[in-house]
Amino acid sequence: MDGLPPTLEKVIKGFSKFPGIGKKTAHRLGLHVLKTSSKEIEDFSQALINVKTKINTCNNCHNIAEADLCEICTDEKRDSSIICICEDPSDIYLIEKTGFRGVYHVLGGLLSPLDGIGPDDLQIDSLIERVKTATELIVATDTSIEGEATILYISKLLETQPIKMTRLARGLPVGGQLEYVDEATLTRSINERVELN
Amino acid sequence: MDGLPPTLEKVIKGFSKFPGIGKKTAHRLGLHVLKTSSKEIEDFSQALINVKTKINTCNNCHNIAEADLCEICTDEKRDSSIICICEDPSDIYLIEKTGFRGVYHVLGGLLSPLDGIGPDDLQIDSLIERVKTATELIVATDTSIEGEATILYISKLLETQPIKMTRLARGLPVGGQLEYVDEATLTRSINERVELN
Repeated sequence: MDGLPPTLEKVIKGFSKFPGIGKKTAHRLGLHVLKTSSKEIEDFSQALINVKTKINTCNNCHNIAEADLCEICTDEKRDSSIICICEDPSDIYLIEKTGFRGVYHVLGGLLSPLDGIGPDDLQIDSLIERVKTATELIVATDTSIEGEATILYISKLLETQPIKMTRLARGLPVGGQLEYVDEATLTRSINERVELN
Repeated sequence: MDGLPPTLEKVIKGFSKFPGIGKKTAHRLGLHVLKTSSKEIEDFSQALINVKTKINTCNNCHNIAEADLCEICTDEKRDSSIICICEDPSDIYLIEKTGFRGVYHVLGGLLSPLDGIGPDDLQIDSLIERVKTATELIVATDTSIEGEATILYISKLLETQPIKMTRLARGLPVGGQLEYVDEATLTRSINERVELN
């Protein structure tokens, strides 16, 4: 007890449960609530509750959605023949920023036998179903061992299907300096070198 | 629109209004809400609303309080004859950590003629009233121009009163290295040097 009212203590404790929010930041955020208008805090509280009650998973791609289908699956301007496979809904928003205009499929995780995560724990069955109407599959998983294993598993599974499978390029970061690039990335960038025209 | 459900957009916007929370962090916190249990989010929302409805200002020291008097003013184990003057309630929790067991008086700001903040905007009248029963007044304001001006104003006001007035010591930070200390602080630390016994 630092002499803080218990109500405020509770809010600070709530903030500190969020990722990347330490004790000090939680404290500052809690004190900021005092300075914010009641109307604003009420709206924010209501929005938090709405997220939990109104948001579920898209029946098609397993992205987060407020209806049966997510905003991306219902967007008719998108090219639904190119499916980008992601681990998590949060990855979608990173890829959206690149201007990608295809659709997505969220796996809900990566294969990881050590953690007991097998193919049945991921949205792979529904992917196989969707692949039938697609022309290209872009796998956008992490470059971790789990990510690589997942790519391998999916590509083996679809071996016999007439679909183009691609994965994100690996190489030098844009704007990065050669001397700061790690060996593995540099090796990749040499192996996957691109012809100048 | 990044393809996010509007409900989630609203929560992210709410988070980004907090100090030190940028767009990316707000995004991450918003997505974390999805992964948190409904119960936890409901409790957090309620706590936020409670802070706005239940917390007001202590009638005695102007600290934040859930009742007429704050937890510090009602604590009988504290020495109410030593009053520490702060700018803001948040300063109290910093000083509490030092183990100080006196009481506080929150000014609610610092004198700043340029910003149009004069003595009438601060809780100075009630301070003068409280001083009558105190033996020592510690001024714990910032070392800014406004902080210094406020110290000066209060000490002039209380010149004729038989009360001991002190302010926080200035000098080298504990654990700090001499070569990194700025000139003004070093000058202060020489002027306010302490005799070794």
